[in-house]
Amino acid sequence: MGVVVAFEKGEGSGAGLELLMELVAGDMERVNEAILAHAQSHVEIIPELTAHLVNSGGKRLRPMMTIAAAQLGGYSGDAHIKFATAVEFMHTATLLHDDVVDESDLRRGRQAARLIWGNQASVLVGDYLLGQAFKMMVETKNLEALAILANAAAVIAEGEVLQLAVSHDTSTTEDAYLQVIGAKTAALFAAAAEVGAVVAARPKDEQAALESYGRNLGVAFQLVDDALDYSGKQALLGKSVGDDFREGKITLPVVLAYRRGSEQEREFWKRTLESNGQNDDDLETAVALVDKHNAIHDTIERARHYGAIARDAMAIFPSSPHKSALLDAIEFCISRAH
Amino acid sequence: MGVVVAFEKGEGSGAGLELLMELVAGDMERVNEAILAHAQSHVEIIPELTAHLVNSGGKRLRPMMTIAAAQLGGYSGDAHIKFATAVEFMHTATLLHDDVVDESDLRRGRQAARLIWGNQASVLVGDYLLGQAFKMMVETKNLEALAILANAAAVIAEGEVLQLAVSHDTSTTEDAYLQVIGAKTAALFAAAAEVGAVVAARPKDEQAALESYGRNLGVAFQLVDDALDYSGKQALLGKSVGDDFREGKITLPVVLAYRRGSEQEREFWKRTLESNGQNDDDLETAVALVDKHNAIHDTIERARHYGAIARDAMAIFPSSPHKSALLDAIEFCISRAH
Repeated sequence: MGVVVAFEKGEGSGAGLELLMELVAGDMERVNEAILAHAQSHVEIIPELTAHLVNSGGKRLRPMMTIAAAQLGGYSGDAHIKFATAVEFMHTATLLHDDVVDESDLRRGRQAARLIWGNQASVLVGDYLLGQAFKMMVETKNLEALAILANAAAVIAEGEVLQLAVSHDTSTTEDAYLQVIGAKTAALFAAAAEVGAVVAARPKDEQAALESYGRNLGVAFQLVDDALDYSGKQALLGKSVGDDFREGKITLPVVLAYRRGSEQEREFWKRTLESNGQNDDDLETAVALVDKHNAIHDTIERARHYGAIARDAMAIFPSSPHKSALLDAIEFCISRAH
Repeated sequence: MGVVVAFEKGEGSGAGLELLMELVAGDMERVNEAILAHAQSHVEIIPELTAHLVNSGGKRLRPMMTIAAAQLGGYSGDAHIKFATAVEFMHTATLLHDDVVDESDLRRGRQAARLIWGNQASVLVGDYLLGQAFKMMVETKNLEALAILANAAAVIAEGEVLQLAVSHDTSTTEDAYLQVIGAKTAALFAAAAEVGAVVAARPKDEQAALESYGRNLGVAFQLVDDALDYSGKQALLGKSVGDDFREGKITLPVVLAYRRGSEQEREFWKRTLESNGQNDDDLETAVALVDKHNAIHDTIERARHYGAIARDAMAIFPSSPHKSALLDAIEFCISRAH
């Protein structure tokens, strides 16, 4: 699975995330300090649980978007640090709240924070981080940027609820799936990039370009994530394969394999994803069916489509290291898959 | 249990909540409309679950504080409607997130939203309501009021985590307990009343007076709530008695009964609250011990103390129907107990 197709190249350094990381390194150091400072509390669970998540080796792609967009706009103040930190806190809160499972799911548990500290602590520390995020954003006094992220918070939660509603439903269409990931993933990427331009007081067309860049990058990112969950590449990265399958999540690889499959194959998907009746060898069958119908390849093709839109959205900016770095990030997100 | 002690009367109509409800009725109608409007979503679970909570017959005391404080300040704009609605959404989100239980608690479940829609829906719809609350508040463009409620959101969550940390700990002191309820309950009452004065652009001393009124009313309210959970009066109100006991929550009636009790009695509290080993007749014993040590009576005495502070905080305002109504609310909160 996972195919190597040359990415449609244009500008960009071809250096993966390296250029981006180099450009934002100084500001990201300040973001890291702000994360630690705002996760402080005399209530010990709060810094403990936050440290568990913050040190879990995430790439911090979302706050990097905010920093890079602000730098691209020539911003030299402090507000982008607060917004980038708030974006990371909003993302972390989402992870914590996502991990809270229904009673029926208890035995499938992953090694998530909730398994160490419990469901309630995960929920409440998530709420604390959301509260801190809003406090930091209000401190900037930038109402326009605040409105963008407050709106994103509502859209993300709505997307998560929608995902819950279509969960286990094999008749989910590609459009419905795109609606879910547009809200639960792409909305935060879009807002993260857009607020960078807003704090830099850049004109509307640049704000819109970065919003579009972030949104389409976010869709591509989630598509590739969903493809990796059925891919052997994931195992090489030290991550587990099949989490989505075990949780009955309907992602694009399944949507495609289900629609392209025989009646017998559809029965397999219904049994394993709708009725929660999975056997030990079902994951292997699922991976084989996804592979048989070329669903990983085509999911990544779809990701490439959104990556191309993100790239074109950036075309209004003149060449610069920051523009190159942001274009590289698109390629990085997609090339994780091969 | 529950004793009738004449409330130290001063100003106030003596009409319970009636005067307050009459004064705010018009604006509360607009708050109700805003609640319904902002709980709309094409994702059906969101309006369904919100309606379940919103129609559950709560008194909406918190948004009434915001409306009454704004009216007291002569405010005639729209921002108080948005803030009052946001306050109610923040409260509702807290209720939803409170209901999420740890694995170990699953068998003690109450008929909460999570039992109908599941833990995840409760968490995510709570997040949605929080997002909507922030959106509405940002729309007012009142940064000062926004900062107050953003700060309250973080403090409330911190208080909830603290409560989790001291849960099941019979050695909790009265001070530690007051710290918990100061954060988890009183902070929202304080912010709800304060923002009313802030949107009305009243001077700092009036803002501080309403903050103090709300904070102390909130403490009194929670103390009485905690007393009622061990009181026969609660059964008369159609609410269940002993929820806190079954959940191993350490509230003031228990703090007092534990400290005043014999070694044998303390062993009882440790077994039932710390080890989760409760028998069918333990609640009866707990109620009897609380009664024996006069802990309901004294919890309400403590509430009366905070009620008196709330009353004095309001002394800087000249007589008016709104002032009377807010003073009545103190008496109402305390007199629920007898």
